Amino acid sequence: MIQEVSGLLENIITSKDNPVIKLYQKLNSSKKDRFQYGLFVLEGLRIVQDALNESADITHLIITENSAGKYPELFQADLRDTKIIVISNELGNRISATTTTQGVFAICRIPQPIKPVFTDNGKYIVLYGLQDPGNVGMIIRTADALGIDGVIMSGTCDLYSPKVIRSTMGSVFRINIYVENDMESLFSMLTGNNVMTSAGVIDGETLLTDCTFTGKQAVFVGNEGNGLPAEVSRRCNRRITIPMNGNINSLNVAMASGILMWEMQRSKD
Amino acid sequence: MIQEVSGLLENIITSKDNPVIKLYQKLNSSKKDRFQYGLFVLEGLRIVQDALNESADITHLIITENSAGKYPELFQADLRDTKIIVISNELGNRISATTTTQGVFAICRIPQPIKPVFTDNGKYIVLYGLQDPGNVGMIIRTADALGIDGVIMSGTCDLYSPKVIRSTMGSVFRINIYVENDMESLFSMLTGNNVMTSAGVIDGETLLTDCTFTGKQAVFVGNEGNGLPAEVSRRCNRRITIPMNGNINSLNVAMASGILMWEMQRSKD
Repeated sequence: MIQEVSGLLENIITSKDNPVIKLYQKLNSSKKDRFQYGLFVLEGLRIVQDALNESADITHLIITENSAGKYPELFQADLRDTKIIVISNELGNRISATTTTQGVFAICRIPQPIKPVFTDNGKYIVLYGLQDPGNVGMIIRTADALGIDGVIMSGTCDLYSPKVIRSTMGSVFRINIYVENDMESLFSMLTGNNVMTSAGVIDGETLLTDCTFTGKQAVFVGNEGNGLPAEVSRRCNRRITIPMNGNINSLNVAMASGILMWEMQRSKD
Repeated sequence: MIQEVSGLLENIITSKDNPVIKLYQKLNSSKKDRFQYGLFVLEGLRIVQDALNESADITHLIITENSAGKYPELFQADLRDTKIIVISNELGNRISATTTTQGVFAICRIPQPIKPVFTDNGKYIVLYGLQDPGNVGMIIRTADALGIDGVIMSGTCDLYSPKVIRSTMGSVFRINIYVENDMESLFSMLTGNNVMTSAGVIDGETLLTDCTFTGKQAVFVGNEGNGLPAEVSRRCNRRITIPMNGNINSLNVAMASGILMWEMQRSKD
C-alpha cells in the first residue's frame, strides 16, 4: 500500500473545487448534507486509525502531501473499498477544523440504524435533548469505557457532527448507539423489551445510593439547562437523584451520567 | 447602593490606561502577576454573584455602562470594602475573555493558604500534575457537588487562572482547596494526619469495586497524558483501578475523579 501512496504523490490535489474536497467541506459543516449523503467526516490520526481498526466503512482517506509518508500504519488496514487521495498541505490547512492539522482526514459512511438489542442484563443510557457536543461525546466515551450495552439518543445534537465525533475519542466506533427522536416510539421500544426506566432528576423520590439496577435498565438524562421534560420523567418507572451538596447546578450532565452508568454497572457484579 | 451606581455613571472610565483596567488585564493573563499581587479576576454575572454570596474578598467590582442598571442583585451584597467602577461598553468588550460579555467583572483577593483540616471521616482528592484547566475546574465543581472535604493540588495548572475559575462554576468559593507543590511535604502532611492514600492508576492491584474507604482517605489522580508518576503511585498505601472496557484511554481524568469521589462518599453511609 505504501507504493500505492507513492503513486498518488504524483497526482496531488491542490484545487479547492475538487469534488471530494467540496463534499468533505459540506459534510463537515452541514447536518443536512450528512443526512442526505449518509456520510460524515473524521479528522486526525487517532480517530481515523480507530475507524480503520473498528472496520468502519471509510469511502475516502484524504491525506496531505507532508503526512502521506509519515503514518505508514494507516496503510496497513484493509483499504480495498477506500479511495485514497493526496492533497497539498495548503488544502489540508484549508479544510482542517484545527489550528495545527495532522493532515489526516476521512469520509465515512453513517451506519444503517440497527434496533438496539436488549440483552438480559443490559444497561443503557438515554440522552434526551442534550445539546452540547462535548457532553454527548464525553458520555459516549465513558459509556464505552464502563462497558455500557448501548447509548440511545433522542432529540440531541447530531451524533455525526465533527465535534461529537472528536470528543468520543473513537468510542463512536466501538459502542452501540441508536437514535430515536420520537418519544412514543422510544418508550414503546423500551417497555416492549421489558426495560426498566429511570429518570435522572434533581428531585427524584429515590436516592441513587438506595437504588439497585438488576435486569434490563435504562437511565434517562436530560438537557444541560432544563433537565428532563416533566412528561418524560413521569413516564419513567422511577425518578432517581444523585445526593448532592448545596448547589444543584454543580454536577454537569456528563459527570452525572458517568456516575449513573457506574452505578448501573456495579449492579452486574 | 443603586444610588451609588447612579453616581458612578457620571464618571465612566473609557481609557484602557486606567490603572484598574491595566491591573485587571495583567491578572487575567499572567500567573506571575496574580502571585505577585495576590489577586485574581472574575468575569460573568454568575461567578461574581457566587463570589459575593460566599463573601469572597472582592477589591474591585467593574461593570459596564450597559450592565450597571441591569443587575441590581449585585448591589445587595456587602460592598463596603469593594471599589465599584463603571466602564464604557467598549472597554468592557476589550477586557472580556468572551465573545459576548455580560459586562460584569471583579478583582478578588487570593485567600491566604490555610492548612487543610483532616476530619475523622474526611475524604480528599489530590490532583497531581493535572494541566488542563477544564479538567481541574470540573473536578473542583464535582468535589463540591459530592461533598468532598477538600481538594489538594500539587504541580497542577494555576488554580486562579481565569479558565479554571470559570469552569469551577463558583465551587472555588465553596470548597476547601489547598496547594502543596512539594511531594515530600504533601506526603508528610497526609501521613502525619493518618490519611490513607490511594493512587488512581490504570494497572493497580485493587479494583475500585473491591475497595472500601473508611476513615480519612485521599485519592490521587494524575496528569492527563502520563497519569501519576511511578514514584508517587508507589508511595501511596494502595493503587486502585476503575474496571474498564478495552481502551484504557477512554475515561478522562475528570470523569475518573468523579467516579472515585463518588465511591469515597458512598463509604460515609
